[in-house]
Amino acid sequence: MNDTITLSHGSGGVQTNRLINEVFFKYFNNDILNQMNDSAQVDIDFKKLAFTTDSFVVNPIFFNGGNIGKLAVCGTVNDIAVSGAKPLYLTSAFIIEEGFSISKLEEIVKSMADEANKAGVKIIAGDTKVVEKGSVDGIFINTSGIGRIYENVNINCANAAVGDVVIVNGTLGDHGMTIMCARNKLGLEGNLMSDCACLNSLVDTMIEAYAGIHVIRDATRGGVAAVLNEISEFSNVTIALEENNLPIKEEVKGATEMLGLDPLYIANEGKLCVFVPEAYAQRVLNVMRNHPLGSDAAIIGQVTRELGQKVYLNTVVGGKRLVDMPSGIQLPRIC
Amino acid sequence: MNDTITLSHGSGGVQTNRLINEVFFKYFNNDILNQMNDSAQVDIDFKKLAFTTDSFVVNPIFFNGGNIGKLAVCGTVNDIAVSGAKPLYLTSAFIIEEGFSISKLEEIVKSMADEANKAGVKIIAGDTKVVEKGSVDGIFINTSGIGRIYENVNINCANAAVGDVVIVNGTLGDHGMTIMCARNKLGLEGNLMSDCACLNSLVDTMIEAYAGIHVIRDATRGGVAAVLNEISEFSNVTIALEENNLPIKEEVKGATEMLGLDPLYIANEGKLCVFVPEAYAQRVLNVMRNHPLGSDAAIIGQVTRELGQKVYLNTVVGGKRLVDMPSGIQLPRIC
Repeated sequence: MNDTITLSHGSGGVQTNRLINEVFFKYFNNDILNQMNDSAQVDIDFKKLAFTTDSFVVNPIFFNGGNIGKLAVCGTVNDIAVSGAKPLYLTSAFIIEEGFSISKLEEIVKSMADEANKAGVKIIAGDTKVVEKGSVDGIFINTSGIGRIYENVNINCANAAVGDVVIVNGTLGDHGMTIMCARNKLGLEGNLMSDCACLNSLVDTMIEAYAGIHVIRDATRGGVAAVLNEISEFSNVTIALEENNLPIKEEVKGATEMLGLDPLYIANEGKLCVFVPEAYAQRVLNVMRNHPLGSDAAIIGQVTRELGQKVYLNTVVGGKRLVDMPSGIQLPRIC
Repeated sequence: MNDTITLSHGSGGVQTNRLINEVFFKYFNNDILNQMNDSAQVDIDFKKLAFTTDSFVVNPIFFNGGNIGKLAVCGTVNDIAVSGAKPLYLTSAFIIEEGFSISKLEEIVKSMADEANKAGVKIIAGDTKVVEKGSVDGIFINTSGIGRIYENVNINCANAAVGDVVIVNGTLGDHGMTIMCARNKLGLEGNLMSDCACLNSLVDTMIEAYAGIHVIRDATRGGVAAVLNEISEFSNVTIALEENNLPIKEEVKGATEMLGLDPLYIANEGKLCVFVPEAYAQRVLNVMRNHPLGSDAAIIGQVTRELGQKVYLNTVVGGKRLVDMPSGIQLPRIC
């Protein structure tokens, strides 16, 4: 097979079938996908289902710590996991620019398969469209996913309560600063690495430790600031953060300071914010720290009612600073 | 709200939320979507689920008989329906070019809501990405969907059997020729209209008339030729078509002849091929003809074993012509 995607790969005929067989099926191979039905057919033995979708347009397509394919699997797995559900099945839909390299596509597809495998999910249906050169920038991927909602949990953005402790599972801003520095060739790329990871096994561990967790959200576009503002609004509470306690890598701190950015607003792809009643916070923190994806977990704040629906930061120098919902143009195509 | 999509609409902050509320929620409004969870949560009271995905990149975005939004709902609804399932829930993910018109977006979203409403499905989760001008051509939409597989049916591409009668629900090539003539400004646009439609109610009627239907497939990219070749391969049978019986509109026939194209290879977006044992064919044909989306239904061929995995046409002039799997570049961005 020539190494270049052509329009004929998207026309639903011989070349499409060859691409599907030689690239997608080679890696995604599983009994449900292999039936090649118009829609995948799966047996369901539970009552409450989680269903979500995300399109990925990240630029550059390959970055330190991952690529668009790994990101597409992790993003959807995480959206299901943070709802208190076990991710089970994904679909993947590719929009590819004419002229794209088939070996790069294969590398992306292999990452997706590896990541799905690690997360314990199957990719069971897909779609491939090829568009003329210039109609899309390289490759965009959509993943949708379904999962089984755990029966004993009620994790929801509206459940944050006064006294809850806010925990994150590690350092902030790693993904966003990796993409930003790679895109702008700032010479800092070597030190930075995306945190892109599937968090479902971490979430399982947390729920096992304490099934009464109030809120879990992954802090992607808009960073921790966007997520906490949404929770503050939905739960009608104030969230007070401690600047001293925010876990931030030295290299990320350096890059954000150089660019005049605030790590609270930078995207993560392997970080979540958890709201737990104070009495259970240490227990949850401990299991997080014992998980490979939570070794830098930290308590970063607490829920109060003092200011209504606000998020604020107790700064290192002893001041208070409001952390608003992000507004205006952030970095586009971060995910 | 200004009428132009900006990068800030995709940044996950204030402007994203406003767009979601003022455009998407305004039309898609339903109790599950409104909970705004990271993943939608739905109650399931059945055992076998259908799950599918499709991305839509059609050009032009608006065409006679529909637009990219209507197409995105119909396409996924149909993929579920032809599996012998009842479509229930969709997700929708938008990739929008910076500078796109918000009022056009609203028109697209309204079409999606109208079509979902007619088909009896709810759009319960979504995603919005905005990319820089030139990184995508206008707007691309992905829809994924889930449905309940009917317990009493076994509809599958591998089930075609010798003696089965092949029925289509109406005229061939309407969608593809509409798009092709509109794109190339051939002056034939006025006479042509896409057949874009949700076929789930038609499929329900057919299954009600005869639950033992062997195969249903919608004939989209690659047309009837691609679908029948796949069925021939999966079921290991020969499919003999009668050229005389192919329902084709005069204006489509005229346009295909002018362009040297074969209507069997042209995409449809509201047409399906059905394989029924001969004894039940008339019953199924009758209920199809009584349905608004099947008034031009016709028997176009029959399953044999004479040539192995082949599709052929008994031509008007008394010859036999092989109908191969389409190969090479068809019209890109037909759906």
